[in-house]
Amino acid sequence: MYRTNTCGELRLSNVGQQVTLAGWVQRTRKLGGMTFIDLRDRYGITQLVVKADAPEALIQTVNSLGREYVIQAKGKVAERESKNPKMDTGEIEILLDEVNILNKSITPPFTIEDKTDGGDDIRARYRYLDLRRNPLKKALMLRHRITQETRKYLDEHDFMEIETPYLIKSTPEGARDFVVPSRMNPGEFYALPQSPQTFKQILMVAGYDRYFQIVRCFRDEDLRADRQPEFTQIDCEMSFVEQEDVLNMFEGMMRTLFKKVLGIDIPNPIPRMSWFDAMDYYGSDKPDIRYGMKIHEITDLVKGHGFSVFDEAPYVGAIAIDGCASYSRKQIDELTEWVKRPQVGAKGLVYIKVNEDGSFKSSIDKFFSPVEVASIAKAVEAKKGDLIGIIVGDKRKAEVQLGTLRIEMGNRLGLRKSDVFAPLWVVDFPLFEWNEEENRWNAVHHPFTAPKPEHLKYYYSDKKEDIAKVCANAYDFVLNGTELGGGSIRIHDHDVQERMFEIIGLTHEEAEYKFGFLMNAFKFGAPPHGGLAFGLDRVCALFGGSDTIRDYIAFPKNNQGRDVMIDSPSKIDQSQLDELKLNIRENK
Amino acid sequence: MYRTNTCGELRLSNVGQQVTLAGWVQRTRKLGGMTFIDLRDRYGITQLVVKADAPEALIQTVNSLGREYVIQAKGKVAERESKNPKMDTGEIEILLDEVNILNKSITPPFTIEDKTDGGDDIRARYRYLDLRRNPLKKALMLRHRITQETRKYLDEHDFMEIETPYLIKSTPEGARDFVVPSRMNPGEFYALPQSPQTFKQILMVAGYDRYFQIVRCFRDEDLRADRQPEFTQIDCEMSFVEQEDVLNMFEGMMRTLFKKVLGIDIPNPIPRMSWFDAMDYYGSDKPDIRYGMKIHEITDLVKGHGFSVFDEAPYVGAIAIDGCASYSRKQIDELTEWVKRPQVGAKGLVYIKVNEDGSFKSSIDKFFSPVEVASIAKAVEAKKGDLIGIIVGDKRKAEVQLGTLRIEMGNRLGLRKSDVFAPLWVVDFPLFEWNEEENRWNAVHHPFTAPKPEHLKYYYSDKKEDIAKVCANAYDFVLNGTELGGGSIRIHDHDVQERMFEIIGLTHEEAEYKFGFLMNAFKFGAPPHGGLAFGLDRVCALFGGSDTIRDYIAFPKNNQGRDVMIDSPSKIDQSQLDELKLNIRENK
Repeated sequence: MYRTNTCGELRLSNVGQQVTLAGWVQRTRKLGGMTFIDLRDRYGITQLVVKADAPEALIQTVNSLGREYVIQAKGKVAERESKNPKMDTGEIEILLDEVNILNKSITPPFTIEDKTDGGDDIRARYRYLDLRRNPLKKALMLRHRITQETRKYLDEHDFMEIETPYLIKSTPEGARDFVVPSRMNPGEFYALPQSPQTFKQILMVAGYDRYFQIVRCFRDEDLRADRQPEFTQIDCEMSFVEQEDVLNMFEGMMRTLFKKVLGIDIPNPIPRMSWFDAMDYYGSDKPDIRYGMKIHEITDLVKGHGFSVFDEAPYVGAIAIDGCASYSRKQIDELTEWVKRPQVGAKGLVYIKVNEDGSFKSSIDKFFSPVEVASIAKAVEAKKGDLIGIIVGDKRKAEVQLGTLRIEMGNRLGLRKSDVFAPLWVVDFPLFEWNEEENRWNAVHHPFTAPKPEHLKYYYSDKKEDIAKVCANAYDFVLNGTELGGGSIRIHDHDVQERMFEIIGLTHEEAEYKFGFLMNAFKFGAPPHGGLAFGLDRVCALFGGSDTIRDYIAFPKNNQGRDVMIDSPSKIDQSQLDELKLNIRENK
Repeated sequence: MYRTNTCGELRLSNVGQQVTLAGWVQRTRKLGGMTFIDLRDRYGITQLVVKADAPEALIQTVNSLGREYVIQAKGKVAERESKNPKMDTGEIEILLDEVNILNKSITPPFTIEDKTDGGDDIRARYRYLDLRRNPLKKALMLRHRITQETRKYLDEHDFMEIETPYLIKSTPEGARDFVVPSRMNPGEFYALPQSPQTFKQILMVAGYDRYFQIVRCFRDEDLRADRQPEFTQIDCEMSFVEQEDVLNMFEGMMRTLFKKVLGIDIPNPIPRMSWFDAMDYYGSDKPDIRYGMKIHEITDLVKGHGFSVFDEAPYVGAIAIDGCASYSRKQIDELTEWVKRPQVGAKGLVYIKVNEDGSFKSSIDKFFSPVEVASIAKAVEAKKGDLIGIIVGDKRKAEVQLGTLRIEMGNRLGLRKSDVFAPLWVVDFPLFEWNEEENRWNAVHHPFTAPKPEHLKYYYSDKKEDIAKVCANAYDFVLNGTELGGGSIRIHDHDVQERMFEIIGLTHEEAEYKFGFLMNAFKFGAPPHGGLAFGLDRVCALFGGSDTIRDYIAFPKNNQGRDVMIDSPSKIDQSQLDELKLNIRENK
């Protein structure tokens, strides 16, 4: 071993001990004839000191040290004269009597500091240097802790970790697969899994009643900022359970993770909200409930006052924005332009200022008396000093626009605090959505999601309005406005499954072709089962108070799906193409 | 929840309780008006009973049950009249008062019993049914236990679990890569990792001084019985360590696994053997030391007696086969033919019987006096009743042939007991081997494996015989004749690395092309580091006393690399090929 201790562990109680440390030179500085070296490793930083009267050879070696040199340092632990309370090792230093240079470093292209001078591109190319920085180190240590505690909880609750294959079969449904040409079966391909969904259901059929896996998944999608072509799921499935059992089990898991990893108690029980309420009150299927500012429908209240915008609207909704009655005309205009951007898509923004003195100022003063405006303010639960924003339109669209405005104002007003955690189960999703273009029903989730038992009467109805009422036995885990996971109780009954295919317009032959292997397994005694999956990358980011999942992945890809550190993807040898019997088309 | 208890947990102490179980019907039988049902789940089997005087509806339901039906059973726990001591639940039974059929099953194509009537192919196709059988269930439960305990040990020893990417870059070295065409970068490919070797070394450069990962690896090799195109490694790396530190750390891990998973104490310390001794005494780089029967060189002892086979041989070696002096002429002839098979390749087998009465009978009586034969027997450490087998030839070849004979006789004589565990470190491998064809040195491992520090003098020598002497700072973990893992201390010194490339005849340009990205990272302060990887599939099989890794993988592929359950690999849609800008060659 090149060291007796790490750079993070020595304390006053170690004073007088002879120690050997090893690590990277963070910085060196000279002060009154003495040289100070900050030595860094994964565990922390320890200050090394060489006195002015040290042997010449030692002083020379120390003088030759550059940033990021790897050294072994031997010396005695001493109490510091000027202590640094910000550092765990800030009360001690090492009086050096030997330094061995284990490896030199050329000058890094950016500083290895919490705030670095390196841009995104260069840090991605030299990811191994970026990973030396504290913020990334903390992110990966958090991820390590989360995965260990996750497995521990699941193991303690009798879940078996079972590895499912990565070389599977391409399915024509859902997102695009990455495929892998088979050399031994020319012209044929494996696919990389988008999730182990079918395998975990197969494991339930096989009798492994509690399964989990922390597993890589792959989707060849056009990438957005927060998407990676490969990502990690905490994937779980249980047999002989109903929705309540699944929610309790994973509520317990999240509670344990929060407690053990962050030392935080989250609400018990975690609140639940129906998808319909989430849409009506938050304009989102993943509400951020860290703050209020809920959406209120005021359609009935505002009709018939001669204001055609309201009178002609199928829906009028409003939110009371905390303390923004003081907004200037210019600020309100800016907000109006903001909701009119194509990304939001509102036609405009009607406002009411609820002044501190109780008076109102609004863009609808012409149509509404102060008493009528006051009743609107009351309906919207606006306080003195609030700004009411009103948006009209089709109900769901206007709700989403109001929800988007709500999130924006939450950000601007600092209401979305990264150290506050407000988990939420969203439940009772619609099972079907009407596909106007194809004039048929789509399954909102996948076609193995079960209807809620109490909605079976609608499920078997011939009426379109009944089918629209059927809720899925499905659930999402939402944290601070981000969906961290979701799942459902699956259909295990043959008749229910047949009816599902009938409703979504799949023939027997099509169902067989698309899902044959799973359907076949189900003939041999499928138990009632259900499960869910959490997105680990996102769980880690949110636990870390960040929304950049890339910082929580050791070696992420960029927006073009490239790993710029290793320069991949790349060309392969002609001989490899020959073995695979593949040609690359000329006119790409 | 569909159940209050599992089928493995009820005992005499539960008698009188009202319980609900759920599971699969293993079998039903009628006996004197009563019906017995064996109900199975992951945890065990519980006997259900319906008495002759039960309600008619219940009797009818029970009569309709077929094998592998999924049912929910409610009733009272009662003490059995005739107890079954072989079952954990054998002292109780459930007196049923309600049975609900949760799902029916068509007749399985083979019996779900410990000994099944299904052949390999049909069991692979219906893997989900095969997985219901006890032997496979036990195998997967063992695997679960091993992975949990592995992570626990490594976490407790400050290892961080860090996920490395699956979509990486094809390298022209080593085994064949599986490649993944990139749609966003047409004509370019990712490769699936054969191991995270370069990434774990990068992580050491990044300062993560203790890394581990239980990770899938991929090799597109022509498959042999015990090979899978995807397999799982316990992959580890450490910084600031020497070989002794790595061996101690992972010896501790294996000891912990044996103790916690199997309740077995393995030798402390685990014996170590140099590669040279392993070859000389066992004719193998992965000796099975559960039994003796060591190889003895008797070249000097047997020369000059007029027996040209010995006189002309560069090497003569022998093993004493336990208690086989009683072999008939026919048996010895069979053994001689066995070693002459091309798979072994010996020219013949000279034998000496050491009879129980102390006399000898051999195929070399003409050339050796009884006293001389006795001295051979002594040199080979043969006891009365042993059969000495002698093989001649080139030293290493003859040793391997003797080693193969030793393993065969170990199998025939039942000396290779699956419940005896004899771990071993094999160390001090040669760093280089001479490539006769290309007239140059090859690196035996990869070219980042460090020479042993005490051999640096040979390493920098110009003489071929010195280079041949250089041992690698490398180690293999061997259990019962199987290599379970291996690794090395890596080169972190720039000069040592340059010399490596010089010895194996790589130019700077070639080294840059092949290993550029890692070499570049090494310029920024690489710490001394080393590590190893264990093959998890094989670890599980050996712990389970089996040599069939396929039983320890939930969804393995067959010898043609196919998953016959899901029928993969398979054709993909033309639209997928179009998006990837690929053509499949016509004349495959």
